[in-house]
Order: sequence, then C-alpha cells, then structure tokens
Amino acid sequence: MTRNDGRGCCDLRPITITRNFTKHAEGSVLIAFGDTRVICTASVEESVPPFLKGKGTGWVTAEYAMLPRATHTRSPREAAKGKQTGRTLEIQRLIGRSLRAVTDLARLGERSIYIDCDVIQADGGTRTASITGAYVALADALVGLRDKGVFVDIPLKEAVAAVSVGIIAGEPMLDLNYLEDSSAEVDMNFVMTSSGRFVEVQGTAEAEPFTIEQMDAMRGQAMAGIRRLFAFQQEALRV
Amino acid sequence: MTRNDGRGCCDLRPITITRNFTKHAEGSVLIAFGDTRVICTASVEESVPPFLKGKGTGWVTAEYAMLPRATHTRSPREAAKGKQTGRTLEIQRLIGRSLRAVTDLARLGERSIYIDCDVIQADGGTRTASITGAYVALADALVGLRDKGVFVDIPLKEAVAAVSVGIIAGEPMLDLNYLEDSSAEVDMNFVMTSSGRFVEVQGTAEAEPFTIEQMDAMRGQAMAGIRRLFAFQQEALRV
Amino acid sequence: MTRNDGRGCCDLRPITITRNFTKHAEGSVLIAFGDTRVICTASVEESVPPFLKGKGTGWVTAEYAMLPRATHTRSPREAAKGKQTGRTLEIQRLIGRSLRAVTDLARLGERSIYIDCDVIQADGGTRTASITGAYVALADALVGLRDKGVFVDIPLKEAVAAVSVGIIAGEPMLDLNYLEDSSAEVDMNFVMTSSGRFVEVQGTAEAEPFTIEQMDAMRGQAMAGIRRLFAFQQEALRV
Amino acid sequence: MTRNDGRGCCDLRPITITRNFTKHAEGSVLIAFGDTRVICTASVEESVPPFLKGKGTGWVTAEYAMLPRATHTRSPREAAKGKQTGRTLEIQRLIGRSLRAVTDLARLGERSIYIDCDVIQADGGTRTASITGAYVALADALVGLRDKGVFVDIPLKEAVAAVSVGIIAGEPMLDLNYLEDSSAEVDMNFVMTSSGRFVEVQGTAEAEPFTIEQMDAMRGQAMAGIRRLFAFQQEALRV
Amino acid sequence: MTRNDGRGCCDLRPITITRNFTKHAEGSVLIAFGDTRVICTASVEESVPPFLKGKGTGWVTAEYAMLPRATHTRSPREAAKGKQTGRTLEIQRLIGRSLRAVTDLARLGERSIYIDCDVIQADGGTRTASITGAYVALADALVGLRDKGVFVDIPLKEAVAAVSVGIIAGEPMLDLNYLEDSSAEVDMNFVMTSSGRFVEVQGTAEAEPFTIEQMDAMRGQAMAGIRRLFAFQQEALRV
Amino acid sequence: MTRNDGRGCCDLRPITITRNFTKHAEGSVLIAFGDTRVICTASVEESVPPFLKGKGTGWVTAEYAMLPRATHTRSPREAAKGKQTGRTLEIQRLIGRSLRAVTDLARLGERSIYIDCDVIQADGGTRTASITGAYVALADALVGLRDKGVFVDIPLKEAVAAVSVGIIAGEPMLDLNYLEDSSAEVDMNFVMTSSGRFVEVQGTAEAEPFTIEQMDAMRGQAMAGIRRLFAFQQEALRV
Repeated sequence: MTRNDGRGCCDLRPITITRNFTKHAEGSVLIAFGDTRVICTASVEESVPPFLKGKGTGWVTAEYAMLPRATHTRSPREAAKGKQTGRTLEIQRLIGRSLRAVTDLARLGERSIYIDCDVIQADGGTRTASITGAYVALADALVGLRDKGVFVDIPLKEAVAAVSVGIIAGEPMLDLNYLEDSSAEVDMNFVMTSSGRFVEVQGTAEAEPFTIEQMDAMRGQAMAGIRRLFAFQQEALRV
Repeated sequence: MTRNDGRGCCDLRPITITRNFTKHAEGSVLIAFGDTRVICTASVEESVPPFLKGKGTGWVTAEYAMLPRATHTRSPREAAKGKQTGRTLEIQRLIGRSLRAVTDLARLGERSIYIDCDVIQADGGTRTASITGAYVALADALVGLRDKGVFVDIPLKEAVAAVSVGIIAGEPMLDLNYLEDSSAEVDMNFVMTSSGRFVEVQGTAEAEPFTIEQMDAMRGQAMAGIRRLFAFQQEALRV
Repeated sequence: MTRNDGRGCCDLRPITITRNFTKHAEGSVLIAFGDTRVICTASVEESVPPFLKGKGTGWVTAEYAMLPRATHTRSPREAAKGKQTGRTLEIQRLIGRSLRAVTDLARLGERSIYIDCDVIQADGGTRTASITGAYVALADALVGLRDKGVFVDIPLKEAVAAVSVGIIAGEPMLDLNYLEDSSAEVDMNFVMTSSGRFVEVQGTAEAEPFTIEQMDAMRGQAMAGIRRLFAFQQEALRV
Repeated sequence: MTRNDGRGCCDLRPITITRNFTKHAEGSVLIAFGDTRVICTASVEESVPPFLKGKGTGWVTAEYAMLPRATHTRSPREAAKGKQTGRTLEIQRLIGRSLRAVTDLARLGERSIYIDCDVIQADGGTRTASITGAYVALADALVGLRDKGVFVDIPLKEAVAAVSVGIIAGEPMLDLNYLEDSSAEVDMNFVMTSSGRFVEVQGTAEAEPFTIEQMDAMRGQAMAGIRRLFAFQQEALRV
Repeated sequence: MTRNDGRGCCDLRPITITRNFTKHAEGSVLIAFGDTRVICTASVEESVPPFLKGKGTGWVTAEYAMLPRATHTRSPREAAKGKQTGRTLEIQRLIGRSLRAVTDLARLGERSIYIDCDVIQADGGTRTASITGAYVALADALVGLRDKGVFVDIPLKEAVAAVSVGIIAGEPMLDLNYLEDSSAEVDMNFVMTSSGRFVEVQGTAEAEPFTIEQMDAMRGQAMAGIRRLFAFQQEALRV
Repeated sequence: MTRNDGRGCCDLRPITITRNFTKHAEGSVLIAFGDTRVICTASVEESVPPFLKGKGTGWVTAEYAMLPRATHTRSPREAAKGKQTGRTLEIQRLIGRSLRAVTDLARLGERSIYIDCDVIQADGGTRTASITGAYVALADALVGLRDKGVFVDIPLKEAVAAVSVGIIAGEPMLDLNYLEDSSAEVDMNFVMTSSGRFVEVQGTAEAEPFTIEQMDAMRGQAMAGIRRLFAFQQEALRV
C-alpha cells in the first residue's frame, strides 16, 4: 500500500532541523517533519518555580501553541479567547515531562529552562516534532551555559525524540501527516530516549479499539523511526 | 515484596460499585478503588453540540473534578480560581474518549450523555476509577432510555474499564494507591474493552525511562486487572 | 394542610449527620436534610490571609458548590465556565460569616479553617444544611487541634445552625424541600446560635411581599426548628 | 446618645433625589443619603433574557458598582481585575429582586429594564440608597413607555424603598453612615413596599449575635424610616 | 457651514471644570466638554509598581471607564463581561502617558498617583475631556502633598490638555460631539503641553485617508483650542 | 551622526518580503525590517461579524502577537496569562484599521479577511512591519478570490505601508531598531497610502514633548521611507 504522499509504511517524512533560527533565545530551532514546521526555543532563567526554591535543583517546562493559520482553516487565537484548550495544555505538559526525563535537574542547578514550541505550519505530528526539536534547542541552551562556565558537563543524561504511529486500513504507518491522522483508526505517540527506553507512550483508538498485536507493531515502527530521528538530531548538533 | 497495604503485586484494591447513589441523574454510581471514591453520574440531554447538529449521531462527553479536600492537603477549588488545571482537562478528555469508544453514537441518536466524575476522596487511580464507574452510570442511563422506548437495543458495543500499573523498586505493581503512585518510577494507565482491545494507553516515566520489557510486564498485569474489573461491573449491573 | 411529603407545617425533614465521612479532612461530615445531602469538610491551614498577618487572630472561611448533577437537570460546572455564580458567592459568604460568629478567632490563633460545602444531592435548603453540617465539621477540626495541644479549650463560643421557612398558600412552613421552595411566596433563612440569638436573617419575597405578622410566624417556626437541629448536632458530636 | 454626625437614633441623613441627572437613560436619578451618592439609571430594551422568550412577560434586572475612588481608600476597579466581587453580585441581585417585587412583569410586556446603580461617593448605605433611587428611575422609564403608548397604566404595583439599621453600643440606629457601619455590632437592611410589607430583610451580626428584641427594635426604626423615604420619592416624582 | 449645535468650525463646546466633586479623593474633578461629563479623580498611594521599587522615582497611571448608560444605548458593563475592551485599554494608556509627560516623576518620589476617569455622560471627546480634567485633579492631589510638606515645589513641569479635531464634509472642525464624530471622515486627537509642544498625536482616517494639508489644518485648530483649555484649567485652579 | 547599525538618519533597514511563507493561508508573508521578522497571514472566511450581517459589505480585521521569545528576555505567553495586553490590543486595532482604509469593503462582499501578524523575532518596528507585510498577504488573498471569480477587480483602493520615526539626541531617525527605540525621546508611527495620504498617525513623547518642527521633520522622513516600502511591496507582488 502506498501512502498519500508516496511513502512506505515505515518511512519518516523529510526531516530538517535548523539551529539558531531566531537570535534572542539561548536555543532556537526550526524543525520540519514534512510540512509540519515548529519553532522551538529554549530560554534560560536564573530562578525556579516556588515549589523548588532553595532545593538546589533546576526545572524544565514547556509551552505550546499554534499560529491561528498554521492549520487548514483558521483556529481562534487562544490569547484572544482568554484560555488555552485542553489539547494545548495536554501537549505542553507532555513536552515538559519528556525533556525533564533526560535532564539532570540537580546538575542544572537552581535555574529554569522554558521551552516554547510554536507551530507555524501544521500537517500532523506537531507534538512529536516539538519534542524532537525542543531537545536540540535545549541542548544548545545548555551548551551555552557550559561555555559560560556554569557547569563542566552538560546536564543531559541522553537524547530524547518522538514520533507518531497510526493504524490506517488495519496497517501500522509511521509519522502520520494530517490527512492520514484524520483517517487513522488508532494514533500512538512514542517518546523514547537514545538508550532505547520510553519516557512517554500514548495511544488512542479514534473509532475501533486496537489489539495487543497492533500495539506491538506500532511500537516496533516507532522505535525504528525514533532511532533515525536521533541521527538527525546528532547531525544537526554536530555542525 | 509486600506492598504498603499488604497486597500482592497483581492485586486490585477492594472494589465496590454502588448504583443509584444520588437520585436525580439518569445514571449515578459511587465507585471505590480502595480509599479512592468517585461519584460518577450520567445525564441525558436531548441535544448535541453544534458540530453534530443534524448529523443524526449522538455524543458522550465527560467532566472531572476533585472536591478541594479529597486530597491530603486542601487543593484550591477550580471554580474559585476560574480555570481548570491541565491535569483536569487531560483526565476528562480521557474519560470522554474512553466511553465514546464503546458507545454506538449513531444508534444513540441526536442526544448527549454528560458524564460527571467527582472525586470525593482520592487515594491514587482517580482517573481509572472514574472510567470504570462511569461505564456503569452510562449503562444505567442507556437502559433508562431503552426502557422509555428510545431504542430497542442499548447502544453499547462492549464494556470498558481502566486500571493503573506502576514500576516500584523495579517491579510492576497493579492499581497504585497514592503513596505508591508518589514513589513509582513509571505510571501507566490502560483503558481496555471487554473484547480485550485497548482504547487508551498512557505511560509516563516519572524519573527513569522504562524498558520494553517493563512495558510488557505492566501491560500484562493491567489486562488481568481490567478483566477482574469487568466482573465487578457485570456484578453491579446484574442486580 | 398536609405538605407534599406528608409533614406538618412545623416539621423538619429527617436529619442525619455522619461524621468522618471522608478520611483526609480534619473535620468531614455528610449531612442530610431529607434528600438534600451535603459533604462539609473543615481543613486546617497554619496561615492566615494577608489582611490578618501578624495580628495573632485566626480566620474561618467557606466555599460552596453543587455537583453538576446534584439538581433535577444538570447545571453547568462552575470550574468549566470559569466563574462562580452570584448565588454561589452569596451562599459561601453566608456560611463563612455564620461560622465566624461562633468562633473565638483570637483564641484560634494565626491559623485558618477552610470550610468546603459540596452539595451532592439537592432538594432545597442546601445553604441551611451546609451551615448546620459545617458547624459539626468545624467542631471536629477544632477538637483535633485541641487534642494536639494547640489550645486547651475549643475556641467555639456556642453552636450555630440554620433552617429555612417559607410561606406557601399563605401559611408558614418549616424546612422547605425543592418543590415547596419553587412554589413558596416567601423564603426566609434563619441562622441562630444555641443561646437563641441570630447571626443571619435573610428573607425574600418571591412574588408577593410579606407582612410583619408573617415574618414573626416564620421566625417562630425557625427558632423551634433550629433548636431541634442543635439536638441533632449534639447527638452527632457526642458519639 | 448623639451620633457622630449629630443625628438622633431614628433620623435619616439628608435625602436628595435629582431626576434627569444624565440625558441618555430613560430614567436617570442621582440620589444622596447624606454623603452617599449613587447614579441610578433605568434603560429600556425591547427584548427579554432567553428564559423568558415568548412568555409575554418582562424583566427587571440590576447591576451595581462603585467608582474606584468612591471610598476612603481606592478600591481596585472590577473591570480591571476581570471579575465582580461577591459583595457586588450580592448587592445587584438584591436590587433586582427588590424592584421586580413591585413591578407587574406581565403588564410590562416582553421588554427588559436594566437598572444601573453606580456609586460615585460612598458613606454607608449604598445598597439602600441604590434601591430607593432606582425605584424613581424605574418609575421615570415606565412613565416614558406609557407616554409612548406602550401601556395605559404604569406597571408598578406599589413603591419600594430601603434603609439600613444597626446596633451600636447596644442601641439601634437608623441609616448608618460609614463610620457607624464600621463599628456596628449588627447591620440589617430592610426593603419595604408602600403597603408596609417586606420584600427583603437581611440581618448580619458582625461580631455578637443579636436578640429577637433587638431585631424587633431595628425593624420598627426601619419601617418608620422607609415611610419617610416614600415621601421623598413621591415628592421627587411629583415635580 | 454651521455645525449641528450652532458652533463655528473652531469653537470649543462650553467647558466647565468643577473641583472637589467627590470628597474622598486627593483630587476630584467633574469636567464637562458640552454634554460629555467625566469624573476625574487622583488618588495618592505611598508605593510604586514593582518595576520601580527602590529607584526613588514615582509613577502616574490611569484607568478609564464609561458608566453603562453614559451612551445613547446601554453598553455592557466591562466588570460584568470580565474584561476591558481594547478601546478602554487604549484610552487609559493614553491618559497615563499624557500625564506622566508633564510630571517630574523623580521629584514625586516613590509614590503613585492613580487617575480614574469615569464617564458619566458621553457625547464625543471623552478621552480629551478626561486628559484635560485629570490634569486638574492631578494638580490638586500634588498641591495636597506639597501642603503636607512632602515636597516644596509641585512636581509638574507644565500643564497638559487635549482636544479632538475632525474632518467633516472636507472641513476641519474642533472638538467633535458624538453626532459629528460619527460622521467624521478623519478623527485626530492632540495632547499638548502649555509650552506648545506635543505629548501625543493620534489621527485616524475612518473612511478616506487624509492629506498633509488637512493634517496641518487640524493641527492648527487643535493648538488654538488647547490653548483655550489651558485658560479653563488655570481659571479652575486659581479659585 | 552614525546610527548604532551604521545607517544614515533617513535609511530603512534591509527589507525583505517573502510570499507563500506557509501553505494553508490564502495569503502568507514573512516580512523582515532588519532583524524584526513577522509572519503575516490573510485568511478568508465566508461570513461577517454580526453587526454586518445582511449589509452586503465585507470586513477586514487583525490579530497580533509575539512569540514569547521573540524578545531579548522571554515575555509571558498571553494565552497562558489568559488575556492580551493593552499594547497587543492597541496594535491589532491599528493594523485592522489601516487595512480597512484601503479595502473596498462593499466590493469585497459579505466575507471577512482575518489578518494574523505573529512576530517571530522583534527588533523594533513590529507594528509597522506588520502593516506593511499584511498588505501583501491581503493582496494575495484577494487575488486568490478574484482568480476564483468572486469579483472581477481586486477590491483594493491603493496600497498601504507604515514606518516609525523617532527623535534621538534631538535628531529625527527613520525606522528605529529596538536599541534606538529604547532611547528615543519621541516615537511616531505613520501609516500612509500610495496616494500619499495618511490613514493613521500616532506620535508619543516618551520623556520630553516634541515641537511642531520636529513633528514635520519626522513626517517628512516617514513619507520618504514609506514610498520606498511601496516599492518593496510592488516588487514582491510582481513576481
């Protein structure tokens, strides 16, 4: 079965990672998963939230948004409506947890890294692109702190990246685009570290529940896909 | 290893399901997973949200809250703060999706079922107890509609229930209570239907990522646990 | 004239007061005025609002809510709407003032008691049941503090309880249920202390204004009714 | 005992009622109870709230606010804070109920009267001045509708006015100013119609509960005071 | 061409400035530009916003509102809607900037002046009347501080006043009333100091853009008009 | 005097206009004024706001935002705070008015164009870049509608563009960058059409008021600068 964009079942879309995309942030990355494009910035602040004051440990948190016209039809601006949707809150909590899982918060010291993921063009997989790009922005911000002598070793335990897998017409497909996502029977997001372990797994049956065999097939595809994402991250960070 | 409440690794806490707990709702259930107690009501409304108007199909949606003093220390009341937390929104979206997955919305017709899950006492697993109890409340509400002649067969495709599993000291443990949940390295929630298929899977590493073997072990425990929950639901509905 | 539930004009509905209804709160009471059921908890916090900082005196405050399906038809959840109604704010201010009137705030010391009254089933008189039950929860919380040696004598000056009275078909009726309340021409709520004095009196003519004679008749019924409520409180606290 | 402004216990403050205070509203009144000054406007709208659509009956509702510097120290502007306080909501609900009680809503027809009471200078008794002045603004708006032929007889059943009474140093005092209000042990507000019947009675013990004898003494003072307020209203409306 | 109220093109409406309009504020002015009437108060607070703490300099800020029925048809109350409109925020920012431009904030010392401009009747030019009246209220508040010995010289560098000019039927017209404003092709607001310099200039083409010659003609009219407003301010302050 | 980036007093920063920057919007432009970069999209909706329903005329409106890390230090996300600042509302109202001034709303027909200006990198002049870029996005969207046969001639009366001018060290300087803007004594924004007429003029003295001569000098610089911006727009649209 060929997919609507000509990919095979286990192919990622074209991935590009552009560092230093904007100039003010300590880390600033434009990541593209096909037509999905997200600006991921990492901002360093020399303070921590109240619940961590005086504990000597740091914090990584994330916010996520889409430009109103990142989507096929214009979505109302959350700032104008005065509140973030449940979907937005869910995604930004996921991004934050994913990055904290690979950050050595104790070694980071009493400072916070704010991750902002702003989707400028959406075509499916915005949360997985956000996590994958945010890791690079985070690494850049932490390298900057190391270069300023804040710590000797970058407080990252390993890399983290994410991908979606779905079941379409009964078959698992990697890295769904928007059209595929709309027609998928199941949608799973996997967040994995470079040691091959999981920090987040989220699977949702849109219409029909999925079997244990399907879950395993999706997991297999995702693990292979995320390993390729690690290569893109490393390549981007090598330059 | 014995657990802090004397259970074995694969034991559920004592489960009780009390139907007709309050008198106004079309379905009203008090469910207890150990010390976790949730009032689940199902309310029938003869209308659907705007995006479904005129499509001949129904809707099931859910709201979730905790009483301020359901928890060890008092949590601020969301109504007083003027907004629901991301956690609340995430949980109520999960409950809604889980119940829609087993409801035949076309056969429900143009009407909505509002599920309200209000935690009156929290001791871990409030979202899984909510889903498990809400299914019973939903069934009661649908039976009521059938008895009024709205449809001949209850528009439920199968049963749905949920349980949490965690990794504590490297070992998978079923149906975590609050103390266990606080110290778990990994927390997974499984929502499964009575045909043994999944509608939602959510796993989160709190500190250390988890391996594929751990995921499988947790899944196995969860599947066995949820099967026992189906028995409790059936038993409650039989009376 | 017999009432819709068979009571005489001056009868209370069946009253039950269940202490230790939930396990986390310092005081936790389920109170029933007939089919009206309210969970009243008292939570101790070792701090006071900013306007009392450093004054050596304590504070008692209250919040009130109804579960969405406590009522005949489902009411929108205030947390979801993002604000509390005027009715809610009015009732919770009334509960707070009523309890402060019998608490010796100076002897309480610089700590706060948060009263939460959550109506799980409504059938008229939710505010009067809330005050009556909250007093018992407050007493339990204060006994707990005394038992921990925070003070020698419980800082309560006397008991407080409340009841509604209405005029139906020209006749005063005690402790209205929802159906009665809907058809009452006048609705008065009396909050009285065990020394027979008033802390709050609120009377509202729904359609026709009421005479001074009617006010006196309602007051007489209320005073007798509240005296019986004190007996229920004492009985509950004796155990 | 002389009061801080030289009045006897049963004296009202100087009352002035200025009609046509602003030019756009159908009724516009500046009322002064001593130094308390409130602009009361009545605005006619040819529609009713959704719950009254098609029922052939009208509606009267009220909103209340204080200018930020109506008070001794500046209060934050509610519009800037983004919500109305419980006190504001309580007062505007009281004003609305008081005026509805004397309006023949059926004869008003399917239209709404919006009462706005904006306190430009506060010195105690803002809610009672608001009710007393709003009645005159309402009458003016209804006369205007009658003059346009909307109805033959003005749909007012009788007049309504309000006054506060407090207990100071054990003695009842009529129409408290701000200083008195701050030191009063009890504060009662009475809303009475010109037939000598009550539409609202609200009494609150600030510190010490009050006896039945004190309640009766306050009621007597209030009734005499409100009768004098009716004379001021009639005098103002006669011109 | 005669204007709808009989004025010539370059005439101001009748201007009156009433000081000490309300009793609590340190400065309190009722200003009328024809039928536009605004209460302007200046309130002194012995603190500054966080961003100025410890810098030894003061602050002047403003809030603006209209009573709901200041206008021809009733406008919803911003406090009830829960947010201020963009128009309100724009105007209050303009008022604040205009007054800060003539205040010597360093000499004011670490204290804030809150300006409140509340429109009780609107007939065009509410923002220019607000600025013109607020200057007088500010001056009164600063004189009060000087009289208390807070500083020797009043920290005002010069006077400030404002007026609107519009193009109607191709001709510039000074100080537009509401009817004129509604039909104006261009609306400019000028805020000028007594030394003949500008602190704010805002011009908006409602339908047709305006030429450089029209801008200059409007500016000339505005400068002459504002000079006459300074005379009214001085006259008011002389008494 | 040389400027901090080497420009002469009357030089624009490098201007680039990239069309079709994102794929979903009917018009999508990335505009750069030096380091200021704004994504401007134009979205067509086949409906109009309620106040225009049935009038046969169209509408153009705008929303504006900055990514949190568009600025030197991270600014809180407005969607997370739950409200837009006064600055944001002021700017988006300005953008909307500027574009409406050159659009023939009658010929547009009953449809709306939503302009979204999202600043991804800020270095001064974000509102003027937004207006200049939004015009190009609007033109693209209208060309698209013409190409679909919605109208024969594009309903644009002329072009519109905007630039800022400031007074620094007494000298007028064109198109201020952030550093210049921070130290400018006066900041004026001019919005001009291609016929050399103004739709908006806004000047603000940050510290010292400005003279009529300074206003004229700034206006002259702005007019020359905007004429060059028209060339950039035309060049971009020619391709």
